[in-house]
Amino acid sequence: MDEPAFFYAVEGVDGCGKTGITRALVDHLNDTGRRAILTREPGGTPQGEQIRALILSGSDDAWDANSELLLMTAARVEHVRRVILPALATGTSVVSDRYVGSTIAYQGAGRGMAEDFIRQLHRVAVGDLWPDLVIVLDLDPLIGLARSKGRLRAAAIDEGRFETLDLAFHQRIRQSYLDQAAAAPQRHVVVDASGTPDMVRRRTIDAVEAWQRGS
Amino acid sequence: MDEPAFFYAVEGVDGCGKTGITRALVDHLNDTGRRAILTREPGGTPQGEQIRALILSGSDDAWDANSELLLMTAARVEHVRRVILPALATGTSVVSDRYVGSTIAYQGAGRGMAEDFIRQLHRVAVGDLWPDLVIVLDLDPLIGLARSKGRLRAAAIDEGRFETLDLAFHQRIRQSYLDQAAAAPQRHVVVDASGTPDMVRRRTIDAVEAWQRGS
Repeated sequence: MDEPAFFYAVEGVDGCGKTGITRALVDHLNDTGRRAILTREPGGTPQGEQIRALILSGSDDAWDANSELLLMTAARVEHVRRVILPALATGTSVVSDRYVGSTIAYQGAGRGMAEDFIRQLHRVAVGDLWPDLVIVLDLDPLIGLARSKGRLRAAAIDEGRFETLDLAFHQRIRQSYLDQAAAAPQRHVVVDASGTPDMVRRRTIDAVEAWQRGS
Repeated sequence: MDEPAFFYAVEGVDGCGKTGITRALVDHLNDTGRRAILTREPGGTPQGEQIRALILSGSDDAWDANSELLLMTAARVEHVRRVILPALATGTSVVSDRYVGSTIAYQGAGRGMAEDFIRQLHRVAVGDLWPDLVIVLDLDPLIGLARSKGRLRAAAIDEGRFETLDLAFHQRIRQSYLDQAAAAPQRHVVVDASGTPDMVRRRTIDAVEAWQRGS
């Protein structure tokens, strides 16, 4: 079977279930005869993982919003060049846990960086590569934060710095994802991420299959 | 004595003597009753030193030119916000071993990134802070590379990745510094960096004092 390769990104507020859905989508594609790899941001390459470790450690004051944006984008440059484009070039689909939509949501809507500047960085430095389909896992951030905190406590991990920010911040993130989907509906699906993991997985796979039939 | 505080940057090709001259200029300012601190790029803050370690390690292929530019700029954002502006605000002069001129020279002229994009990053992300005076230590890169290699061998350190690039690259760096000085002569002095360290130090201090009398 020679299916075309697609670039998928899974996006959403903290605790919406991105990591599980990313894995489930890769498994589904592979199980149905389509080669696909899983990757994530920030990170995805040795260089990106080093940057990820820098960004995610430390207090909320560790990095200026400007430097955070530049670090995230630098990790993405490496991710695109070393992982995403080579996979697509050999006919392998890519499913990324977060991509540029997270930067628009977190650094733009969340931290107030100009979205124009974020998009220009993406155009000039990253080469303007956009996903074929962004899966927005839509969830009330209150539920997401509760899930996220329970998970971190269960793992005896300190809450990451992104989780410690206030609820209004996370509400801006959610709204940004919905706005991004509304502005480019041809490359977004919004999936209800409430309910059990199985329900969300089923909704996601149905949405992806429907999009593939239409694409 | 209540002298105004100035922001100085020391720039030039590898092996031109920047580090020694930066130290000598800080000593001279302090010895003559003007508070001054020494700093350097990439680095200058704990955040920046972490980025410096990322950039300077690894092979020449470790980072895409785009990510290198973004990492350098992220380190500069932190440097300006945490070191340079706070010092200037308390009347302390700052002498930095490299600043944005290095990015224009190395990433721009050297690696072929668009200078417009570098300047826009500087404007938007770094807040458009330029030095009051840039001291360009001008030297034939052949001499600089010979000095640099001798120093690295003496310290049993592998040649850094910047030193392993070819001579034409370093000639573009030198030319870029001269071009930057010609385009903004009010904030540059070009100092002949050939001869003994003492000679270069004397020329530098004379040039800085002459500029201060005129500023």
